[in-house]
Amino acid sequence: MRKGPLSGFTVVDLTRVLAGPYCTMLLAELGARVIKVEPPGRGDDARQYGPFIQGRPCYFGSINRDKESIALDLHEPGDREIFEAMLAKADMVVENFRPGVMERLGYGWETLHARYPKLIYVACSGYGHTGPSMMEPSYDMAIQAISGIMSITGTEDSEPSRVGISIADIGAGVYAATAANAAFVHRERTGEATKVDIAMLDCLVSMLENPITRYVMTGEIGRRRGSRHPSIMPFEAFRTSDSYIVLACGNDKIFKLLSGAIGQPELADDPRFRTNSDRVAHSDLLHDLIEAVVLNETTTHWLEIMQRAGVPAGPINNIEQALQHPQVAARNMLVDTVDPVIGPLKLVGNPLKIWGFEDPTSRRCAPDLDQDRESILAELGMG
Amino acid sequence: MRKGPLSGFTVVDLTRVLAGPYCTMLLAELGARVIKVEPPGRGDDARQYGPFIQGRPCYFGSINRDKESIALDLHEPGDREIFEAMLAKADMVVENFRPGVMERLGYGWETLHARYPKLIYVACSGYGHTGPSMMEPSYDMAIQAISGIMSITGTEDSEPSRVGISIADIGAGVYAATAANAAFVHRERTGEATKVDIAMLDCLVSMLENPITRYVMTGEIGRRRGSRHPSIMPFEAFRTSDSYIVLACGNDKIFKLLSGAIGQPELADDPRFRTNSDRVAHSDLLHDLIEAVVLNETTTHWLEIMQRAGVPAGPINNIEQALQHPQVAARNMLVDTVDPVIGPLKLVGNPLKIWGFEDPTSRRCAPDLDQDRESILAELGMG
Repeated sequence: MRKGPLSGFTVVDLTRVLAGPYCTMLLAELGARVIKVEPPGRGDDARQYGPFIQGRPCYFGSINRDKESIALDLHEPGDREIFEAMLAKADMVVENFRPGVMERLGYGWETLHARYPKLIYVACSGYGHTGPSMMEPSYDMAIQAISGIMSITGTEDSEPSRVGISIADIGAGVYAATAANAAFVHRERTGEATKVDIAMLDCLVSMLENPITRYVMTGEIGRRRGSRHPSIMPFEAFRTSDSYIVLACGNDKIFKLLSGAIGQPELADDPRFRTNSDRVAHSDLLHDLIEAVVLNETTTHWLEIMQRAGVPAGPINNIEQALQHPQVAARNMLVDTVDPVIGPLKLVGNPLKIWGFEDPTSRRCAPDLDQDRESILAELGMG
Repeated sequence: MRKGPLSGFTVVDLTRVLAGPYCTMLLAELGARVIKVEPPGRGDDARQYGPFIQGRPCYFGSINRDKESIALDLHEPGDREIFEAMLAKADMVVENFRPGVMERLGYGWETLHARYPKLIYVACSGYGHTGPSMMEPSYDMAIQAISGIMSITGTEDSEPSRVGISIADIGAGVYAATAANAAFVHRERTGEATKVDIAMLDCLVSMLENPITRYVMTGEIGRRRGSRHPSIMPFEAFRTSDSYIVLACGNDKIFKLLSGAIGQPELADDPRFRTNSDRVAHSDLLHDLIEAVVLNETTTHWLEIMQRAGVPAGPINNIEQALQHPQVAARNMLVDTVDPVIGPLKLVGNPLKIWGFEDPTSRRCAPDLDQDRESILAELGMG
């Protein structure tokens, strides 16, 4: 563990797949010790997800770095004893089972809270621990579909698209980390431990606040609009002579800069385009006018011009190109680890930059199943 | 303010548009008092973004509820005096200016930290406060393009698509809230205030951990695949007789349940589909085999069958349909407010559910510019 705001705190981590493990990865980045408790035999489901390099699961490795692993069968008395000894010394337990699983194991919030009053309980599930759908099974893709986010992602005439990442899982993981930290604040201030109950669907509803507000206020149901923003213009992709450029004019001043940069200063004075509302009302026309100019030169050409003019702009990078952005290295967003089988590897770094704490350039590799059993047992005096 | 883990803490909020205001909205949901400091005249840029109902900006209203507003010109000595009196009593300042703006105002981290040693500083920017690109202007759309997320969102043959929400802004807002809470934890434990430095690009890189890991480990550059997940199968949309259904089989057991549910139990024993890796290797074939069955009945029909079978599934809801999901009401994810001009309105609720704290069904409407000036000045003895 390294020094961070959560240094000295221990998190017992029952999570699997993505939302929970992403949450506990962030807690580890903040300095907490995270001990993964996995079922014996196969461990976390994500150990079965590819791609595999020399038999090592990359998906699992990426978000479980800097964690310890112990395999415990929570139906088996001896293992339960170990688990309970771990809980007695822990500050937080995190789980992303379906609601009811912890209760059936005898480890529901009420039971744990009575027995370990300082232990914070963080639950992450598809629908939350209340409400009529709480017991329904869920995965990221189902929640993406149900939440409405797929209905506004992609182009009108294409097949349905997911967000390119597992936004329901990753999102829930970050909100869970936010609430987990808030629960730590509360415990520090009052001594009281609480239960955090994060639902993937709630998180996506919150992320969808803009299209939801639009619907609630105007009755307008959002639709798939490609790269176009529903309330800001120009704020979208334009074709260039060799690919695309995204231009993002968040206010009238930037639109004026853009108009100058493309040699059409009169656009900023045109009554159809004077304010953002005017531009949104004439977005097709304005799109065509801008594209007619930018289509004549390359993306690189326009990026240089936009940079000089101070217009927020970007190329549509692929993943390889994105990683070459100078900020990725400068901000330490790719870090090193050494896998015992594969050797040196790169992992994604820590987005939670807090000055005064180190932001190390390497991480301990994700654990093999049960890798830390002996040291954990020895520490508990159960070795 | 209501009771929450951050009750009693005051946040001085210089943020505008989306990432910063979304962060401080979450802090308000956790119980902090948030005082928005806006430039006189036009205030937060987002006050100019539509849609407007009876002249009221919906975009702004949605994420600025439960905040106070005071208009201060930070270049003007009298207003600076008020601002400094506010900082002296505050626990945190949050800003999402371009790096350097706070320094030019004489309110950079070093200055503030020396003068107000307990004041936590949270900065949210496009590229962060370090690195070669730190001074570049940015907005959500530019960062979506640069980060690579647009390159994997949408279908292969369609025009480029943004994620249907402002994922770079909202994402940065949540990570900033996570780090802000961690900074509160640290201050509670040590008395020491820190600077949080959140970059939209860092946050998207972190959210992209899966495609980045895949690229780093295998050299495979992610591409747009519609609704298909790159490493889990079946985990995508299928056409039904009247629309689509998303099926999400996260493990072999669920795939077996699905095979039974569609009357094709032999699929689970087929060596081409036995494990997730097998299914990913034969994903086109498996997609066609499943779709050939589900195409014969409606989405509603299959949703009932999947629910009985325990297979995570969902319809591709639009925003209106999503809000009708029984969990949205049950989880209090739509709350009431009363706008002084429009009247009663709905807003998105709080995804950070922490048991033991109330989860109220109403919010104070977003403030008019400078609405709380008098009460704030009176409190500071400057009225």
